[in-house]
Amino acid sequence: MSSSPLVNQLIEALRCLPGVGQKSAQRMAYHLLERDRQGANNLAAVLEQAVKEVGHCEQCRSLSERKICNICESTSRDRSLLCIVESPSDVQVIEQSTDYTGLFFVLMGHLSPLDGIGPEEIGLNMLASRLDQGEIKEVVLATNFTVEGEATAHYISEMVNSRNITASRIAHGVPVGGELEYVNSTTLSRAFTGRQNF
Amino acid sequence: MSSSPLVNQLIEALRCLPGVGQKSAQRMAYHLLERDRQGANNLAAVLEQAVKEVGHCEQCRSLSERKICNICESTSRDRSLLCIVESPSDVQVIEQSTDYTGLFFVLMGHLSPLDGIGPEEIGLNMLASRLDQGEIKEVVLATNFTVEGEATAHYISEMVNSRNITASRIAHGVPVGGELEYVNSTTLSRAFTGRQNF
Repeated sequence: MSSSPLVNQLIEALRCLPGVGQKSAQRMAYHLLERDRQGANNLAAVLEQAVKEVGHCEQCRSLSERKICNICESTSRDRSLLCIVESPSDVQVIEQSTDYTGLFFVLMGHLSPLDGIGPEEIGLNMLASRLDQGEIKEVVLATNFTVEGEATAHYISEMVNSRNITASRIAHGVPVGGELEYVNSTTLSRAFTGRQNF
Repeated sequence: MSSSPLVNQLIEALRCLPGVGQKSAQRMAYHLLERDRQGANNLAAVLEQAVKEVGHCEQCRSLSERKICNICESTSRDRSLLCIVESPSDVQVIEQSTDYTGLFFVLMGHLSPLDGIGPEEIGLNMLASRLDQGEIKEVVLATNFTVEGEATAHYISEMVNSRNITASRIAHGVPVGGELEYVNSTTLSRAFTGRQNF
């Protein structure tokens, strides 16, 4: 324990950050107070503002401080493509790593009936009315490859297909740089099923 | 980049934390906004308060929101022992791991003439007048075992000895659990010089 109750309180508060335990929180608190008070002040202000102002985009449900987020509003995007992801961080990672230029729809979770999370909780009614507008030609399912993510993708694919819209799923397979020996068997078997002409 | 400028700003602000790069900052920002807005608000409030209120104890120079910190004020501590450390986090780590019950004096750095950090910058005039009060019988030097830390300890030991007060240095040696094979040669040679009767 530090000799200052307020420093202890700060260490405790920093532990709400994911992956930050007691030791890292201590290191952060002392670093901020001894060497970067300006950064700390800035962080406090931005945190407060973000919590107050960042809500969800009314169109894609991603995090946004405006009613319609930048991506949904952009005129340079392919509005016939819609990519379905589980969380806003998935949008960011796809934006950073791929050349996908369509729009997004963020479920903010996945179907999980046992936890009371049904189609409505993940915004599928919003998605349905969006599909009915007729602008979208293809839906790319990019939910996680977990049991729940797969089930959610399957459920949505049926919604999509029933409207005569194409549903696709991002590819399963061996990761780039991955060695076959260390890839788990399900992934390897999926990589064979999904093989493409060279 | 996220679709929300405010989220990007938050990610940038989180990078002022030590050991937090782009990926961790993203993870933290999304975690806070999606799952722990209360924790985020609390963190913002505590950060702001700590930066505003935490200053330095007038007696030991450690971080404290009061003029005199808890340790200096405590009546149950051995007031004849004074431990010299480089930073407030050293106080915390000594409090957590040892049964030292004396007082502390925090240099907030070490002597580094090339950077313009002389005796006055690390509070040695305060330390001198404290030693002159005659309450302190032993000064335990617990600066880091770096070149600067050793030089600082040496400088202070001369100040202390000239006042007929005992100066001691915490022990160098093989870390507990350490294997001789992997200990560097200077440490090993110090461990031999500092050997004690069994």
